[in-house]
This record gives sequence, structure tokens and C-alpha cells, in this order.
Amino acid sequence: MELSSRQEQILTIVKENGPITGESIAERLSLTRATLRPDLAILTMSGYLDARPRVGYFYTGKSNDHILSDKVKTITVGHYKSRPVVVTESSSVYEAVTTMFLEDVGTLFVVDKLSTLSGVVSRKDLLRASLGQQSLESIPVGVIMTRMPNVTVCEDQDSIIEVAKKLINKQIDGLPIVKKVSHGSGYEVTGRITKTNMTSLLVDLANNETI
Amino acid sequence: MELSSRQEQILTIVKENGPITGESIAERLSLTRATLRPDLAILTMSGYLDARPRVGYFYTGKSNDHILSDKVKTITVGHYKSRPVVVTESSSVYEAVTTMFLEDVGTLFVVDKLSTLSGVVSRKDLLRASLGQQSLESIPVGVIMTRMPNVTVCEDQDSIIEVAKKLINKQIDGLPIVKKVSHGSGYEVTGRITKTNMTSLLVDLANNETI
Repeated sequence: MELSSRQEQILTIVKENGPITGESIAERLSLTRATLRPDLAILTMSGYLDARPRVGYFYTGKSNDHILSDKVKTITVGHYKSRPVVVTESSSVYEAVTTMFLEDVGTLFVVDKLSTLSGVVSRKDLLRASLGQQSLESIPVGVIMTRMPNVTVCEDQDSIIEVAKKLINKQIDGLPIVKKVSHGSGYEVTGRITKTNMTSLLVDLANNETI
Repeated sequence: MELSSRQEQILTIVKENGPITGESIAERLSLTRATLRPDLAILTMSGYLDARPRVGYFYTGKSNDHILSDKVKTITVGHYKSRPVVVTESSSVYEAVTTMFLEDVGTLFVVDKLSTLSGVVSRKDLLRASLGQQSLESIPVGVIMTRMPNVTVCEDQDSIIEVAKKLINKQIDGLPIVKKVSHGSGYEVTGRITKTNMTSLLVDLANNETI
């Protein structure tokens, strides 16, 4: 919403002096209360200002930015997820590297015999392993992966922004999206969410194409 | 801006029937023109509707989404860049891997003797090289890097959204930010922009903290 310059002036006055009565605002602008009435109505109805009887107008702190952030905050992981790529714990590091190249992903999820999540292995983990002296065919991926419960996971209904924060704070490229298994303990892997998905969301926001 | 349900009704009517006069809108809602006046003022001043004398109200197609996307589109690469990490073309792949771990980055920029950009090497390139039979100490990074002019570059003043699109379309994690060298040809590397920066921008948008 584009504000007129008078509306901007009113906002500034209320920000600095609120709570303030309509009369006092009008005085400061050398205008009548009646002249200001439509502007104050607009600012109040659009949420920039709030008014309380016998107190006056005060600034809500709301701005266009909040419209944006409210929108972004409603988007869940499930809207932007990619399919997961998994290997079994007994696969070799060599097999894991091959899978990573074939599937063109940066993070693999490692599952146990019951297909529940047992760990995560990143491109960085594999690169570190490949510097060692041992043959990559002889090392099981289970040895070099980050193992549960040290793996950060998320679920379909989680806020994508909360997950983005986790990716940044933990300096990782992607998280497994999981579901509790119905019988027994542990998680089933249902998806993958990465910094690539976050970049796509950003582009969609700019193009007004979010889901 | 949160619209009231009556304002939403008006928008729907104008979308479907515009241009339409205030009187006709009032009729459809079984209200008087006077009752609708504040709502129409709000919708017009906030840019949802436009009005032309003797024609009536019509829908501008503007929505909150546009406010958002206009904001995002003004952000440039320079606002969100990270510092570049460079290695020289004669460095070994082993040195490159070490640098990548020490600096904790996913992309290294390779420069020639004049410090101009000659290529880019990613974690993926290094992982691929490490699968080969040769010792990593004996391969110069110049052999495995993506070489100019096949490197996608960007500049400080480029739109961050355009760069985000390039990262997605070219399936790469980061781009060098460059400046033409003042004498001679080629580029000097001044920064790095990655999917991590894009994820940070997304979080900042959600928190109203963009620059």
C-alpha cells in the first residue's frame, strides 16, 4: 500500500508522540480534525495505527514488511520438499559417492534394515573420507555418517522458515523430512529439504508464485 | 493489509464485473452507496482498485504479493555477499580440498598469476577427482576446475533474484562476484554468493530484517 505524503507525516507524528489524539495530530499539521479523518481512517483500517477511546492513536509497528513475513511464515516444508535419496547402512562409501553423483544430490539419508532413518551423509563427509588412506569400497557408510539421534530432522507441517534457520545455524545443506513409524520407534524418511528448495522459494516469492 | 469481509466481497464483485459503478456495487450488496464509501476509499487508496470518472471501479490486479515481490526484486547481490575464498591455478587438488575444509566453503575460486579469475571448483568437482587413481597432491586444481569463459559470474549491483535463478538453472551452489580489472582483460573476484546467502535472505524476509 502506497501512503500519501500526508499519511506518512501522520505516521511519523504518531510514532514519535503516540498515543496522541486526532486533535493534537491535526494541530501539528495545521489542519482540521475533519480534514484528517479519511487519512486516519485509512491508517487505522490498514493496521498501521490503532486507536483507543480516551487515549488516542498509537503506532502498531505493522508495515508492508509484516504482510510479507506473515505470508512467508505460513509456508510449510511439505510445500517445497524434494524426494529423498537413501542408501543402506551397509553400503560402502564408494557406493554412496556413486549414488550421490547418479542422483545429483548433496545429502544422502542412511536407513537400517527396517528402513528407518539411522543417519545422514553429506558431500563434505564423503570428501573427508576420500582423503583417507583406506579404499572407499571397504568402508561402510555407517562408519562416516552422522548418526541418530544427532541428526536434525523435520516434518511436513513444519514452517519452512524454521527449517531454513536450522540449515543456517547448523551449517548443513539439507534435512530429512520424516514421519514417526506407526509400529515401533524411529522415523521413516518421506522427503528432503535443502538450501536449493529455499532458493526456489525465494524466486517464487519474487515472482508471486508461492503455493 | 487485512481486508474486511465486506472489502473482500467488493473486490470479488469488481474483479468479475469491473468496470462497475459504486452504485451498482452497492446494489449487489444491498447496501447504500454512502455505507460503501469508506471501503471503496480504502480499496482505492491501497491500490487494489482504481476508479475512473464516468467509468467506475476496476481491479488493478495488485495484491499483497506484489508488494512483497517488488521489495525482494530491489535487493542486490552486494547486500548479501560473502567473502571469496581463492586458490591459485597451480595449487594441487589436495591443497584445494584442505582449503575448502579450513574455510568451510562449498566453492573455491581459482585465480591466475595476475589474480584474475580463471575458474571455479566445487565440492562436487573435488569429490569426483578424489575417486580417481591419481594422487591428489599431483593434480593441479586447474585440471579439474570449470574454466573461464564457462564460469557464470555476477556483479555487486545484480538483482539477487536473478542470481538465485542462475544457481537453480545451472545447478550450482555459488557464484563468484566479480569486477572488471581496470587495466587489461578479465575479472577480479570480490565476493561469493551462494544458496546459503539465499537461505539467509529468506529468513530475513520472514523476520522483516532485510537491508
